[in-house]
Amino acid sequence: MSDAPPERSLELDRVVNFSDAVFAIAATLLVLTIQFPEHLERPGLDSKVWREYRDVLPQVFAYGLSFFVIGRYWLAHHRMFKMVRRIDGPFISLNLVMLGLIALLPFPTEVFGDYPSSRPALVVYAAAVAATGLASSAVWWYATLGNRLIDASTPHQWVVHSRLRGLSIPAVFLVSIPISFISVGAAEVSWALLIPLRVVFTRRYGKITEIW
Amino acid sequence: MSDAPPERSLELDRVVNFSDAVFAIAATLLVLTIQFPEHLERPGLDSKVWREYRDVLPQVFAYGLSFFVIGRYWLAHHRMFKMVRRIDGPFISLNLVMLGLIALLPFPTEVFGDYPSSRPALVVYAAAVAATGLASSAVWWYATLGNRLIDASTPHQWVVHSRLRGLSIPAVFLVSIPISFISVGAAEVSWALLIPLRVVFTRRYGKITEIW
Amino acid sequence: MSDAPPERSLELDRVVNFSDAVFAIAATLLVLTIQFPEHLERPGLDSKVWREYRDVLPQVFAYGLSFFVIGRYWLAHHRMFKMVRRIDGPFISLNLVMLGLIALLPFPTEVFGDYPSSRPALVVYAAAVAATGLASSAVWWYATLGNRLIDASTPHQWVVHSRLRGLSIPAVFLVSIPISFISVGAAEVSWALLIPLRVVFTRRYGKITEIW
Amino acid sequence: MSDAPPERSLELDRVVNFSDAVFAIAATLLVLTIQFPEHLERPGLDSKVWREYRDVLPQVFAYGLSFFVIGRYWLAHHRMFKMVRRIDGPFISLNLVMLGLIALLPFPTEVFGDYPSSRPALVVYAAAVAATGLASSAVWWYATLGNRLIDASTPHQWVVHSRLRGLSIPAVFLVSIPISFISVGAAEVSWALLIPLRVVFTRRYGKITEIW
Repeated sequence: MSDAPPERSLELDRVVNFSDAVFAIAATLLVLTIQFPEHLERPGLDSKVWREYRDVLPQVFAYGLSFFVIGRYWLAHHRMFKMVRRIDGPFISLNLVMLGLIALLPFPTEVFGDYPSSRPALVVYAAAVAATGLASSAVWWYATLGNRLIDASTPHQWVVHSRLRGLSIPAVFLVSIPISFISVGAAEVSWALLIPLRVVFTRRYGKITEIW
Repeated sequence: MSDAPPERSLELDRVVNFSDAVFAIAATLLVLTIQFPEHLERPGLDSKVWREYRDVLPQVFAYGLSFFVIGRYWLAHHRMFKMVRRIDGPFISLNLVMLGLIALLPFPTEVFGDYPSSRPALVVYAAAVAATGLASSAVWWYATLGNRLIDASTPHQWVVHSRLRGLSIPAVFLVSIPISFISVGAAEVSWALLIPLRVVFTRRYGKITEIW
Repeated sequence: MSDAPPERSLELDRVVNFSDAVFAIAATLLVLTIQFPEHLERPGLDSKVWREYRDVLPQVFAYGLSFFVIGRYWLAHHRMFKMVRRIDGPFISLNLVMLGLIALLPFPTEVFGDYPSSRPALVVYAAAVAATGLASSAVWWYATLGNRLIDASTPHQWVVHSRLRGLSIPAVFLVSIPISFISVGAAEVSWALLIPLRVVFTRRYGKITEIW
Repeated sequence: MSDAPPERSLELDRVVNFSDAVFAIAATLLVLTIQFPEHLERPGLDSKVWREYRDVLPQVFAYGLSFFVIGRYWLAHHRMFKMVRRIDGPFISLNLVMLGLIALLPFPTEVFGDYPSSRPALVVYAAAVAATGLASSAVWWYATLGNRLIDASTPHQWVVHSRLRGLSIPAVFLVSIPISFISVGAAEVSWALLIPLRVVFTRRYGKITEIW
């Protein structure tokens, strides 16, 4: 008698809206992590400004990386909620924990941008990114265990692949932590693995888990 | 002739959206309360960064606690608005006062994170959290007095329980204020009462006041 | 065949959402105008923190006043858009100018909170609040001239009253500017006129221009 | 049996909402780029405050210009998404890159506001504004190539004009870069070209590409 839409209640929409807002705000606040000195003086102002712009490049790189990461997590959240039909208390709480980690990301991003060659700055940053991704996966595992909160007709294969897929960013960042004890630069280079991994996932599972 | 949905007007939706935005922004701005020094220098940079990360832990704790509190207040707001059918002038004004207190929370959070062992920092923080919760309860009492703005068929028992429930966070923080005059540390520990209280409320009233 | 709702297009909704977001963000960013010193030291930390909290009261007052003002302007916007049925280019541009002024308000608020007894700080603050309100009124006058963008059946009386009503906040702040050249304190006290004016408008035109 | 609306899925709406939020937050965060000294002291406080307000005018100008630019880009996005019917992976990624550039704009805005007479500050600012506009155009070209993601019935003429139109802001800012090597002031004056260009586009293509 009734069909799917009514199941997606106002409740669910409000959780989606709140989550979207936190993702968007956290991503946009990242820009505040880029600091530029305010009282440079003449003479030689132009070359001082160029030099500061050059010195600020690691912060811009950190900005871009975190914006990319938050953007991917947002997309994963997006993909996930598309299949969610019901919500319950533990799901809301897990989702809040995940959002708390998303909203925290500008902090380790700032430290990493300020000290790009420092191992602790990199380790905490990588750990924060990984923890956020694992929390996001935890939300999804909770929702999909026995198709608890998702559409009952969701194919098992889709569930398995979407779970694995969410682990790719945390995996790359977790692996970079031990690498950083050999070389901080090598750890940063290892993050480039995100690109081929994304291509593989898109090519391999794209058709199964929808387009992006 | 007419049924419930049309009663939930665009008006109401816009108030909900505005409120959600303030909750989400306030929660996400909390990260700006965590400060890390920007000009640490070599030699010994790595150990300086580790030390600063350790020193910043009280600020991260304050961030997490306030994020949790704003999250819970948002959920209460959420639960409340689910039953609201009409809005009027005083309701909008009360809701704005409550949002003004929510948006203010990052300020006492910052001070408390900076001075975690200072009694005035703790007292103002606890008072701000409690005042916000009491304002949230005031909105709800106003809406539910004689089922003024809520669905006329809402059971009285549900109303009573939802009112009591909203008082649990303010109660814990208010009680911690006199405790802080014995010991600031004991006051902070007393906040752990939030966890068993939440379990009790969820177990006892969960089925009555919906799932979360 | 068709009725009013379809007239309210996705276009209009997106403008409403964008505007709501700017109002909510500007209101929530106000908290960043409150500054507390970060490196207070022992001994005597507790009394230093109390003293700083006392010294910060003008900033908290400026926060509260601007939050109230942005809240009222948001409500006016809300009331206005309820009647809007179409939008055009100049309307969008005027609305953007108004939003640019809303988003700017945290700046004069910060200066006024820092220097509450300084005439220029008060004058610029009052002028900024008034300019924002006048821009908001300009949007509304544009929309209602000859019922250009609003529901054609809107009673003329409603239009006139809603126009006048939007001028009450700018009027109070404009009047406070010359008063400040006699006494800055008197100018601040004169803002209390907002309260009786609001009561008058609500009592007199409330039934005409809807409830709030 | 089915008509256009269902094609505009929840997916698309969530991307629109997320994008709107980033535009709105970036525009509103711009206010934080305006800095005012916090510890001016008596005697002579009033004239110090006036002087600081005068010194801050370039920052207010930079604020206004960036708010205008972000507003125009938001409107272009708005106009664009009105015609979008489907989204795919590359579209989402391009849109994220564009949003990352939008969210970055407060940074070069701040530097330009701090050093309005410095060539590098102007060049980086103009390049950032232009890059954002080009990214926005790239999103649109991708969506419209062979009417890939837009309504199949969209007239070719509309597509061509809307593509050209999106290039007007980047063109003005790109042209100002070489001009700045002659004179920084002349480069800033050249931005005034935005106004006649806008009038031309509105007059010439307004009827073709919708009203604003």
